[in-house]
Amino acid sequence: MSDNNNTNQQWGGRFSEPVDAFVARFTASIQFDQRLYRHDIAGSVAHAKMLNKCNLLTDKELADIIAGLEAIRQEIEQGQFEWSIELEDIHMNIEARLTEKIGIAGKKLHTGRSRNDQVATDIRLWLRDEIDTISGELTRLEQGLSVLAEQESQTIMPGFTHLQTAQPVTFGHHLRAWREMLLRDAERLQDCRKRVNVCPLGAAALAGTTYPIDREYTAELLGFDRPAANSLDAVSDRDFAIEFCSVSALIMTHLSRMSEELVLWTSAQFDFVELPDRFCTGSSIMPQKKNPDVPELVRGKTGRVNGHLMALLTLMKGQPLAYNKDNQEDKEPLFDAVDTVRDSLRAFADMVPHIRSRKENMRSAAMKGFATATDLADYLVKKGMPFRDAHEVVGKAVAYGVNSGKDLSQMTLEELQQFSATITDDVFEVLTLEGSVGARQHVGGAGEYLKIG
Amino acid sequence: MSDNNNTNQQWGGRFSEPVDAFVARFTASIQFDQRLYRHDIAGSVAHAKMLNKCNLLTDKELADIIAGLEAIRQEIEQGQFEWSIELEDIHMNIEARLTEKIGIAGKKLHTGRSRNDQVATDIRLWLRDEIDTISGELTRLEQGLSVLAEQESQTIMPGFTHLQTAQPVTFGHHLRAWREMLLRDAERLQDCRKRVNVCPLGAAALAGTTYPIDREYTAELLGFDRPAANSLDAVSDRDFAIEFCSVSALIMTHLSRMSEELVLWTSAQFDFVELPDRFCTGSSIMPQKKNPDVPELVRGKTGRVNGHLMALLTLMKGQPLAYNKDNQEDKEPLFDAVDTVRDSLRAFADMVPHIRSRKENMRSAAMKGFATATDLADYLVKKGMPFRDAHEVVGKAVAYGVNSGKDLSQMTLEELQQFSATITDDVFEVLTLEGSVGARQHVGGAGEYLKIG
Amino acid sequence: MSDNNNTNQQWGGRFSEPVDAFVARFTASIQFDQRLYRHDIAGSVAHAKMLNKCNLLTDKELADIIAGLEAIRQEIEQGQFEWSIELEDIHMNIEARLTEKIGIAGKKLHTGRSRNDQVATDIRLWLRDEIDTISGELTRLEQGLSVLAEQESQTIMPGFTHLQTAQPVTFGHHLRAWREMLLRDAERLQDCRKRVNVCPLGAAALAGTTYPIDREYTAELLGFDRPAANSLDAVSDRDFAIEFCSVSALIMTHLSRMSEELVLWTSAQFDFVELPDRFCTGSSIMPQKKNPDVPELVRGKTGRVNGHLMALLTLMKGQPLAYNKDNQEDKEPLFDAVDTVRDSLRAFADMVPHIRSRKENMRSAAMKGFATATDLADYLVKKGMPFRDAHEVVGKAVAYGVNSGKDLSQMTLEELQQFSATITDDVFEVLTLEGSVGARQHVGGAGEYLKIG
Amino acid sequence: MSDNNNTNQQWGGRFSEPVDAFVARFTASIQFDQRLYRHDIAGSVAHAKMLNKCNLLTDKELADIIAGLEAIRQEIEQGQFEWSIELEDIHMNIEARLTEKIGIAGKKLHTGRSRNDQVATDIRLWLRDEIDTISGELTRLEQGLSVLAEQESQTIMPGFTHLQTAQPVTFGHHLRAWREMLLRDAERLQDCRKRVNVCPLGAAALAGTTYPIDREYTAELLGFDRPAANSLDAVSDRDFAIEFCSVSALIMTHLSRMSEELVLWTSAQFDFVELPDRFCTGSSIMPQKKNPDVPELVRGKTGRVNGHLMALLTLMKGQPLAYNKDNQEDKEPLFDAVDTVRDSLRAFADMVPHIRSRKENMRSAAMKGFATATDLADYLVKKGMPFRDAHEVVGKAVAYGVNSGKDLSQMTLEELQQFSATITDDVFEVLTLEGSVGARQHVGGAGEYLKIG
Repeated sequence: MSDNNNTNQQWGGRFSEPVDAFVARFTASIQFDQRLYRHDIAGSVAHAKMLNKCNLLTDKELADIIAGLEAIRQEIEQGQFEWSIELEDIHMNIEARLTEKIGIAGKKLHTGRSRNDQVATDIRLWLRDEIDTISGELTRLEQGLSVLAEQESQTIMPGFTHLQTAQPVTFGHHLRAWREMLLRDAERLQDCRKRVNVCPLGAAALAGTTYPIDREYTAELLGFDRPAANSLDAVSDRDFAIEFCSVSALIMTHLSRMSEELVLWTSAQFDFVELPDRFCTGSSIMPQKKNPDVPELVRGKTGRVNGHLMALLTLMKGQPLAYNKDNQEDKEPLFDAVDTVRDSLRAFADMVPHIRSRKENMRSAAMKGFATATDLADYLVKKGMPFRDAHEVVGKAVAYGVNSGKDLSQMTLEELQQFSATITDDVFEVLTLEGSVGARQHVGGAGEYLKIG
Repeated sequence: MSDNNNTNQQWGGRFSEPVDAFVARFTASIQFDQRLYRHDIAGSVAHAKMLNKCNLLTDKELADIIAGLEAIRQEIEQGQFEWSIELEDIHMNIEARLTEKIGIAGKKLHTGRSRNDQVATDIRLWLRDEIDTISGELTRLEQGLSVLAEQESQTIMPGFTHLQTAQPVTFGHHLRAWREMLLRDAERLQDCRKRVNVCPLGAAALAGTTYPIDREYTAELLGFDRPAANSLDAVSDRDFAIEFCSVSALIMTHLSRMSEELVLWTSAQFDFVELPDRFCTGSSIMPQKKNPDVPELVRGKTGRVNGHLMALLTLMKGQPLAYNKDNQEDKEPLFDAVDTVRDSLRAFADMVPHIRSRKENMRSAAMKGFATATDLADYLVKKGMPFRDAHEVVGKAVAYGVNSGKDLSQMTLEELQQFSATITDDVFEVLTLEGSVGARQHVGGAGEYLKIG
Repeated sequence: MSDNNNTNQQWGGRFSEPVDAFVARFTASIQFDQRLYRHDIAGSVAHAKMLNKCNLLTDKELADIIAGLEAIRQEIEQGQFEWSIELEDIHMNIEARLTEKIGIAGKKLHTGRSRNDQVATDIRLWLRDEIDTISGELTRLEQGLSVLAEQESQTIMPGFTHLQTAQPVTFGHHLRAWREMLLRDAERLQDCRKRVNVCPLGAAALAGTTYPIDREYTAELLGFDRPAANSLDAVSDRDFAIEFCSVSALIMTHLSRMSEELVLWTSAQFDFVELPDRFCTGSSIMPQKKNPDVPELVRGKTGRVNGHLMALLTLMKGQPLAYNKDNQEDKEPLFDAVDTVRDSLRAFADMVPHIRSRKENMRSAAMKGFATATDLADYLVKKGMPFRDAHEVVGKAVAYGVNSGKDLSQMTLEELQQFSATITDDVFEVLTLEGSVGARQHVGGAGEYLKIG
Repeated sequence: MSDNNNTNQQWGGRFSEPVDAFVARFTASIQFDQRLYRHDIAGSVAHAKMLNKCNLLTDKELADIIAGLEAIRQEIEQGQFEWSIELEDIHMNIEARLTEKIGIAGKKLHTGRSRNDQVATDIRLWLRDEIDTISGELTRLEQGLSVLAEQESQTIMPGFTHLQTAQPVTFGHHLRAWREMLLRDAERLQDCRKRVNVCPLGAAALAGTTYPIDREYTAELLGFDRPAANSLDAVSDRDFAIEFCSVSALIMTHLSRMSEELVLWTSAQFDFVELPDRFCTGSSIMPQKKNPDVPELVRGKTGRVNGHLMALLTLMKGQPLAYNKDNQEDKEPLFDAVDTVRDSLRAFADMVPHIRSRKENMRSAAMKGFATATDLADYLVKKGMPFRDAHEVVGKAVAYGVNSGKDLSQMTLEELQQFSATITDDVFEVLTLEGSVGARQHVGGAGEYLKIG
């Protein structure tokens, strides 16, 4: 900015005073959008190749541009690039440096495009890569759960509703419920990816360009499915960012539910599982503590992704077309959502295979709480009693059990027969935990993967 | 509840005192879930048919159940059904009435299911229907836009960025940008529908059932793609409601953007379009007012759908499996999101075809604001000037125009040549509005549908 | 609407066609704003008195208006009032009926006001009343906690961090932590009330009125602190509704935390407290269940208030002054937030005094988990060991305890001395629960209300 | 960590393996909480003085600690401090360095406190300072508005409802409406500050401490109003952060409304005001553009603060007492909310005094749109016509004006008398803009500050 520091060069002669220094910082995005550098360069290389194909750049100019951009990439990765606030954003920083390096051909790179379509392209390229990484972590976690579920298929634990003991299930069955959530998340992520993978290049500022460009070619070079169908929409649309945050909010919600259960299960009161020390932290004041920090932190991080989703929805509400400066605010929430969901999945994918169940504690918890009460009701129904009547009989037996401190399986036949003469000696096999779970072997039932006998 | 009003019959003998009257009202859902009655009945009919197929109900029992449920449906639709708060919810209200009508077979209907899988089924069936209705309205609006866009393909208007005149486009091009948003929404809605269309029946309370049921058969009877794969997940999952609200929040965000533009365009300052009187309202105090109430109200309704999305995400955060009473809170936000998005789309689909453009106002607005400045820059570039230099030249010409009150096309050749000797007589054809738009005829460009010459 | 049913009378002659029937329903508010009737009438009576004082209404007209409004109030309360969608809202419904009843004086009531200032007044009057009711419930709950905390001042329970046993506290101390939250909420509610209690009347549509009105007098009659200072702001401001929802979201967040603990504490694993049967519900399928429905439901309701807050923030974002139709969307979220927070507080205020602690279970839980480990560290420090070293010693003792299955208080002196020779016989009194709690008697400490010795 | 790098020293001997490297990074907060360093040091100095007063530190130890902390502060400010991820957070980083510098006395500083009360103290001290800075910016903006409003007291502009011309007001009146919003914000900020200014120190981990500490003294040294009343609450409470974000969300909502109006008013269609070039930016592709970037960006930033509020509410929902690792997630949203609201206010406070009105454009806009229609109605009413009838008359005159292209003040007396014979020659003075505004001179009316005659 040496020879013309009283107005901003890239805006031309319209301005009579330079931007206020605080405003320059306040409105710049280079502090956070520099992380897009690889995708900005990739987009520029594809754009240059298209311009060359359309005879808008010579072979020499193309070669210079590609070499120049490659050199800049290395400068950035080696920490030698000097970022400038005055140049506002990643696009102008790189373009200015390119022109410095290769002269006038650097300026020509901007032919037939604008920062509006350029940034929309960068962020879609970047997000597509991140979605692929996140999908990978999601799959790693899902597969970790599969393996653990297989190992724990015979481990009986209480199933809860309202955090009250309801019916016995297996730990494997519970883990498979977690896995189902993730399989839906993976599907949603792929659905979102389809809508990310569309190329805005060629929309220019908002109306397209007067140069004879080839939008299909650029789209193809960059691996996009197709060019965006309308230039105004291409530079205004931030749906893909909002949709990604929605998908992420659900992923985090699922992780928060798993986390809640891990926190409960590692409490002294439940003591159902153990997490390896390397995923926990201790206390600076209480030497006995082993805190389930990873699940707690992930549970807490749910809030920030919900928040980012709300930030983006608020941002876009009531915005007229086409590009407005408001849209610069799309990046930080999206970046942080990506980082949060990727790291949270990674932490879980690393940790989950090492969860160890305390089978005895699970089993004895399932023994309490009258977990087989429904089985007794079903037993009575199968002997001909209407369900609602059977429910009443079992309710009375349970009330008796509460008062006498006995589980159903601990009562004598005589005690049970107080409540219904229909009960006979064969009742005891339905009152066992294995009997209860094993009787639910239909598709999706708690006993689907239980080996019996 | 006549003969046993000091405890709640359906819970059995475990309880020593009745529920507090205020608590009964506070925890009941019948006030709002009665709207699910048709889907609850449809689900029960399918469940009964499956029980019969599996020999758990006789043909007579099945016939009685179907006839009884049909009679109840009619009672409800004729306003003759007596809803009871003590019976808590739609399921118990209908079951109690069925038993009253057909006796013990009514109670048998509950064999192999629980309210947990029943409500999950009802709400999925209901939402699937609503999605289909909403898709219809979305398509109607999208087609209305297509027709209007076709009619307005030759109407020149200013394209804006930062609400500043940027480059000329056509009104048709702008309307097609709106349509693109809706096409993505329609896609998302169908993606969501896939995940709604899965059958929880058979999951029972949480662990499946001990009865030899046939889950594929029930799923098929109800038009579901498949039974849910895990019983714990089936009764705990509310993803589909959250995903629907996410999709809806984007639809409302899009409508809010269209609304904002309609409000701007009907202001005296823009005066670009006219809305028919029947979509506007007046003022009780200012007789001259014609207010664009429909777009304003729709813009305002965006908030409530964003709010419902946040409500559901907050609801599910950190919930341990399986069903918890918290989940009852999923319904009202979802119901209201459905109503809001459906009615807002309907209002727009009715209104949009009747928007009339004020072509002269659009055109004269495009004439101002130096909308063809980019075209001048491109002209210079095509004559060999680097883009950034051309930008500087045009900037100076614009500054001159601001001071002298002339648009670029109103300057003489001599005036223009002050800024660059490269400019010659052929410049004036690129400075016209049609010239500008017509030069952008590539895929997705502003001139794609403009007829030239 | 008899003689002029093809345009809307109250908007005058500007309109050439009637409002579309669906649009009339879609834009009407009478379905939900009728609940403001009492406050609308109170506002009208005060306005009429002011008009009379300013000689804009005769004494006879005033008397007729007051009598007419009173009669309408009775009609509404007796269910005899016929609400009309065509008349849009509560204000026009009442005004039309008043004119029907008392003739031309009814129309004069609208002198010097508009629906814009009228609705702003109604909603502030209504909210002020609701805030007072909610404050009452909040105080009732807070006092219930005080009494219970006093009763439970000597009950030892484990204090948790990370849901891991940390240090012993008393149940009373824990309940007093709950009470602190509510005391802050009560303060916030009063701060909010100050900003609600300002009178918009006289702002008319947006600019004030040409009649010589007396705004201080109306404000005084209605118990407002003062008239709003700027007419544009008075009809545009919805801060008070947003602030109320913020305060409510915090109240619900606090109730959600108490709820979470009640759900944990009533689980079989904790079994720390018992809730009376009348605040719980059972299961239709599992007769043994006693579910803590009230806390679960309240926890779930947190979401809806968060959602309403977000709805209102989204609503107001980027709205130009003054009144826009969007603002009609302020009511339903506010109404539901009021109902939710009031009923949730009521349910808690009813329930909390009847929570019964299971003292033995609390005590034995506190005995486990090395809850007095910090006390051992403090003991060592007081004997001269630096804190971090003492922490290390205790950490090793705890590790030994974990492996040997012994709490610190169960180890022999010899065992303890393995880790530090500094430990002597007096250690055992600091390792007891009462010793631990009792040593924390400073302001705000766990032992503040513990009676010792 | 040199001599013991396979477990984390500060947690003691309980751990058998070191924390996973990724987990260490994932769970550390030092990356963002280092910004609290000044307040952490201030809190430590006060704590040390209290320990000395209570004879828990010698004078020498106190002097060493104070000198050591001061030296650390300088190291940090000079960029010489080596931050360590292994030491997790700001507290341990400083404490470890202090011990390195001054030996064993450094470790003694932790006597009677824990990181739980320490971080709660730090963040309250920090937020109190930031609130004071923000209050300053708020006042600066509010005063800038006062001055500008005074200057613009005689500038007539159209007042809008529904973005339709409603009645004439002054620009000063409109600016005073903005000011009212800010005055409420300032009040709310002070109310929030009261609840921030409470001292958690002494709560230690959760239960208080066994050392004879003096909590009032520490509170006093740090300028707090009082010590927190309950130790469990003191370490669990994040209300103050949520309340601050609520207040901030309202501030940003207000700025978004002002921004929306500035964006509208600087559009070519309104052209009501001009912003200085130094608060605007240009376009890299369209040289004519002068974009209102500051208002647009501020409008966009509303979303992020709404998002942070939602993040914190989600975070705290359903958290059991006392401290959980989730709470670490309170900082980044709060930090960013503070930065956003402070910088946005600063940008506005800098910019607002330099807004220049285009008085002729405002005036001619007010002349159009029948802005004095209400005045004509009031004129008729004062001549004895009921308001609703007058409204009808004026409506017809307006319809005539729309068709004939004449404003009311442009019609002849004969034309006006077509609609009512009551109209006489004196009507024209009420139809002027000054007549209209000047007639509204009551408290809060549009003409309150208009000089007449």
